[in-house]
Amino acid sequence: MPLIDLNSDLGESFGAWSMGNDAEVLRHVSSANVACGFHAGDPQVMLATVEAAKTRGVAVGAHPGHPDLVGFGRRTLAVSPDEAYAFTLYQIGAMKAFCHAAGMALQHVKPHGALYNQAAKDPELARAIARAVADAGDLILMGLARSCFESAAAEAAVPFAAEAFADRAYRADGTLVPRKERGAVIHDVPVAVQRVVRMATEGIVEAIDGTLIAFRPHSICLHGDNAEAVEMARAVREGLERAGVAIRPLKEVLR
Amino acid sequence: MPLIDLNSDLGESFGAWSMGNDAEVLRHVSSANVACGFHAGDPQVMLATVEAAKTRGVAVGAHPGHPDLVGFGRRTLAVSPDEAYAFTLYQIGAMKAFCHAAGMALQHVKPHGALYNQAAKDPELARAIARAVADAGDLILMGLARSCFESAAAEAAVPFAAEAFADRAYRADGTLVPRKERGAVIHDVPVAVQRVVRMATEGIVEAIDGTLIAFRPHSICLHGDNAEAVEMARAVREGLERAGVAIRPLKEVLR
Amino acid sequence: MPLIDLNSDLGESFGAWSMGNDAEVLRHVSSANVACGFHAGDPQVMLATVEAAKTRGVAVGAHPGHPDLVGFGRRTLAVSPDEAYAFTLYQIGAMKAFCHAAGMALQHVKPHGALYNQAAKDPELARAIARAVADAGDLILMGLARSCFESAAAEAAVPFAAEAFADRAYRADGTLVPRKERGAVIHDVPVAVQRVVRMATEGIVEAIDGTLIAFRPHSICLHGDNAEAVEMARAVREGLERAGVAIRPLKEVLR
Amino acid sequence: MPLIDLNSDLGESFGAWSMGNDAEVLRHVSSANVACGFHAGDPQVMLATVEAAKTRGVAVGAHPGHPDLVGFGRRTLAVSPDEAYAFTLYQIGAMKAFCHAAGMALQHVKPHGALYNQAAKDPELARAIARAVADAGDLILMGLARSCFESAAAEAAVPFAAEAFADRAYRADGTLVPRKERGAVIHDVPVAVQRVVRMATEGIVEAIDGTLIAFRPHSICLHGDNAEAVEMARAVREGLERAGVAIRPLKEVLR
Repeated sequence: MPLIDLNSDLGESFGAWSMGNDAEVLRHVSSANVACGFHAGDPQVMLATVEAAKTRGVAVGAHPGHPDLVGFGRRTLAVSPDEAYAFTLYQIGAMKAFCHAAGMALQHVKPHGALYNQAAKDPELARAIARAVADAGDLILMGLARSCFESAAAEAAVPFAAEAFADRAYRADGTLVPRKERGAVIHDVPVAVQRVVRMATEGIVEAIDGTLIAFRPHSICLHGDNAEAVEMARAVREGLERAGVAIRPLKEVLR
Repeated sequence: MPLIDLNSDLGESFGAWSMGNDAEVLRHVSSANVACGFHAGDPQVMLATVEAAKTRGVAVGAHPGHPDLVGFGRRTLAVSPDEAYAFTLYQIGAMKAFCHAAGMALQHVKPHGALYNQAAKDPELARAIARAVADAGDLILMGLARSCFESAAAEAAVPFAAEAFADRAYRADGTLVPRKERGAVIHDVPVAVQRVVRMATEGIVEAIDGTLIAFRPHSICLHGDNAEAVEMARAVREGLERAGVAIRPLKEVLR
Repeated sequence: MPLIDLNSDLGESFGAWSMGNDAEVLRHVSSANVACGFHAGDPQVMLATVEAAKTRGVAVGAHPGHPDLVGFGRRTLAVSPDEAYAFTLYQIGAMKAFCHAAGMALQHVKPHGALYNQAAKDPELARAIARAVADAGDLILMGLARSCFESAAAEAAVPFAAEAFADRAYRADGTLVPRKERGAVIHDVPVAVQRVVRMATEGIVEAIDGTLIAFRPHSICLHGDNAEAVEMARAVREGLERAGVAIRPLKEVLR
Repeated sequence: MPLIDLNSDLGESFGAWSMGNDAEVLRHVSSANVACGFHAGDPQVMLATVEAAKTRGVAVGAHPGHPDLVGFGRRTLAVSPDEAYAFTLYQIGAMKAFCHAAGMALQHVKPHGALYNQAAKDPELARAIARAVADAGDLILMGLARSCFESAAAEAAVPFAAEAFADRAYRADGTLVPRKERGAVIHDVPVAVQRVVRMATEGIVEAIDGTLIAFRPHSICLHGDNAEAVEMARAVREGLERAGVAIRPLKEVLR
């Protein structure tokens, strides 16, 4: 029976501001990437999110981001590898404490936003992050397939989990079609579901030029910031289950 | 042979700004209270401070403070116990990760500034902090002797370490003479040293009214923010050693 | 024809997080208290809010708060008068620049949250704020009637505008019934409207013990953070207009 | 009699952390670029710096930076022109309020660190900043000569002041030799002084390849963050005065 993980970014509220529909998304995913206070999240939000994930049987990952609250960690920031190492380790540690207090083990680390995008292309930055994950101990690094994350994880002897995007088109070389290009985002829910099912069951995805490429991701990234996203999440989960794919937390998929 | 710990607040630089003379102070203390990024410290400063402490054989504690960088955590902030629990646990977790990466165990937690002063008098706040220390696991809570910290630690089944101040006068009931009162601060180094030696060897301190009171602290708090403070630190260490008192990290003193 | 101002706190979004229903509230008020970036608001939110207010003919005030983003400026913070003077002046200046760029004059300053509550009772803090308002030039200070704001404004030779709350009960001495007491908050919309109309037309409000007291506020504070609040705002405006009261910005009411 | 302005970055302390030797530097410069709270400075530091500048007869400029306190605004941050416009206007406004309170007019705006470097090369960003300067009213934009600042200022109809660096080598095209190249930084004080004097009196600087190029800057940037920098500042001022060049605030140089 094929296994796959479904992940989503959660715990993105901050102080008096709330964001996303965590309660609903937690019903559809098996792993939560929880913001760690630098780009979103605050200690009380982290605590509540970890507890909600535990209640729903969802595994928790740290979702470290740039120290850029007003920019939600989405703006490219020229951090040095040493800076990235230190602030990633800091955020992982903070999240780990909330998991420990809840009697859970922190499962994985998935960098957020600009930090994710920068490290995916920058071997030094990816290496710094992988080293922080290794030094924090017993964690999986989740990142873009075929990116610098993959080689950096191997180098740091950290288990790597490749994620795919249900709503994104791929090129024949396995990289994502950039968002600004036509056809980059797949809005048709049944099409997206069918693609995810094929990745999970056959290990194949059809690239934007029609080429069939081998791609068997460990996890599918879903969004929860609006009604359409939640609908997509629900449909992906149901489609996978209907196709006989078991939704399991990352650590079980990688086992 | 009597044992005592010497502690000091370290790692209080931030970004481009440096503070204190950590290299010098680390030569005199056995335990460092390291700022965790909320009132001072940043991830790189934390990393460097933990590594420097390790090199000098100094045990590391977390020194969590209010989220008040511009006020250096010195301003009373009306946080709820739930807020304090969450941000204390967050800061402990972050510090723990740096210790783990350095191959050290985090030894203790000592709240900073206004958080320390508020919790010393507020049972609810002290309880929230003690609970965070308990939930982080395997840590000593260090705080003011005869304060709410002591009872909160007992309640949370967390080991408690009482600290004394080399340069402060005590009342007959064992509480500190408030800073604004005459005689509250002891500037005379030999007098301060002699008082510390007596606490460590006889378990006695002379209160401001001449009463002799029983007081055997686990640790003496030293400062390092100016030349006089460093001189006091050096003198206290030498005085204790001359008197046959062994300077040991908190965990050995409490054993 | 009696005049009254209606004010509401606006521009409380921050970065990726939105809050409140500013577009709707702007249809009902004559003065907006716009957050200045310390407890809420960011430069882009401030810019957009000032422009939206201008479009609707609503006067703009600065709404400075404590430097406490995660606490939304609602937590008591023991700031010195000098600190409050400096950060209030800073926030006023920032807001003034957005008004200047939009071709508007900044009309007033109303402190936010804990800063408001602290200064209402603390003459030193109120004086520091009034001095910042005076030093910024040509502004009205809006605050709680019969509070330290009133005397501090007089001392600093700054015009003072007293605000009343549509949904709050008053004691016979003209002070607010504390929120935790029974009857403190008036949920019945017609009752609230009738009270506001009486204040505006007769200069009288009925205290919680039935006493009729003289009270003719310059402005009524309305909320916009939920559907009920917006409904109350709409009802108050309509009730006042029906009773022949003209809704005008503070500067016209004080003229 | 030739005129030139000497400028330096001041007010870079923050909260409990101090930086630089402002008191000494203020004796040598005619214009101060004062940090505005985003990368350095806080409201009380801004207030004190403006007052100190006034006492020494030094003109005040705003020195806005990226919202990056831990990175001191030195890290490239991919801000949009709209973001830069808004946060530059915010910071100018805050600084203007302190000048107004001190009875001074804010003289100029010089972006800091990465914002300066990015805008010098990015026409959109330079335009956004120039527009903020224009919208704040009656200010000079100071920036790198022959950079995007110059054309953006012209477009926005804002007076532009070109600054030169006493300790930096220039290429034959008038641009700075990048710091990482050999000979980029001039450490020899007499050489630096002689170059500045020649720029001020003859409007000529010798490029690194020996070419003589026409360059008559309005202002020379000096540093004050260490003893050598202060010594350079003193020497430049004395050298200019000895050569008959009058040191005057930017607004007099541009008149």
